[in-house]
Amino acid sequence: MAKIKLQAVPLTRANFAPFGDVIETSDATHFPINAGTVERFHDLANVDINSGQDGRPLISIMQTTQATKLPAPVTLVERHPLGSQAFIPLFSARLVIVVAPAGDAVDPHSLQAFITNGQQGYNYRRGTWHMPLITPEVGQQTLIVDRGGPGNNCDEWQFSDEIIVYAG
Amino acid sequence: MAKIKLQAVPLTRANFAPFGDVIETSDATHFPINAGTVERFHDLANVDINSGQDGRPLISIMQTTQATKLPAPVTLVERHPLGSQAFIPLFSARLVIVVAPAGDAVDPHSLQAFITNGQQGYNYRRGTWHMPLITPEVGQQTLIVDRGGPGNNCDEWQFSDEIIVYAG
Repeated sequence: MAKIKLQAVPLTRANFAPFGDVIETSDATHFPINAGTVERFHDLANVDINSGQDGRPLISIMQTTQATKLPAPVTLVERHPLGSQAFIPLFSARLVIVVAPAGDAVDPHSLQAFITNGQQGYNYRRGTWHMPLITPEVGQQTLIVDRGGPGNNCDEWQFSDEIIVYAG
Repeated sequence: MAKIKLQAVPLTRANFAPFGDVIETSDATHFPINAGTVERFHDLANVDINSGQDGRPLISIMQTTQATKLPAPVTLVERHPLGSQAFIPLFSARLVIVVAPAGDAVDPHSLQAFITNGQQGYNYRRGTWHMPLITPEVGQQTLIVDRGGPGNNCDEWQFSDEIIVYAG
């Protein structure tokens, strides 16, 4: 059984591009609306709800019921084969996410960890493997935009290796 | 020219039902996911992106460039004839919204004002007339889920009456 140490690196559009989108206003396309009283940072994520298979977009809120302090073990990842999944925190904190490339199997050595700057959301591309949501405090809420509709849209992959993620 | 005084009332699912959805965890359907570490408050808004007309869901952020203190004038409302539009504030403040029923004309006497409890988002049903976004401070950010795609998706209605909205 291998021991794998994952060190989170700062999340950027460039380093996250293989896995999805970073949802942030920094460096985003924007334009004024409403007679100049509002600036719209436009179309920040590729919402892929696979509507050809009766998918529809959902807006939901996830609330953690346990706190996770880092370093922490990574025991499994999951993927959504039928749609993207966007996470926008409704609180300010630097958050760690762990991902692996889409594919039918997960090589634990392909895992990558990122840490947000406290003001970023992120959108997992369809099929991107990712660790379940963790937050530093209990009860923190995250807005989710993902896919509803028929069909199995969640697969899990369990690790037998000992994998620990560090905040960096 | 009539003078109309609009008094905002607390926003609830019941009183907002003719205009759309209130996005909040209170009294929402929820269930545990991720081995019980996360509670999912599921499918909080009817995201109507009219995909039959090449619509697609957008995730954007609106940032106000001016502060609005109440009471404030309501000079116009707008509607999106091709899709719903959801607003989820990324900050905590009690916020006022002004709406009128869907239809080709707006009777200023049909306007209604609501004030959030500081933790609610809202989703305007397709065609609901509404005042542009206002926030109490400059630079506050609101997450938007609405419709992208071809076609005109914004109509405005200007008032000649003097309409003032009060926080209640």
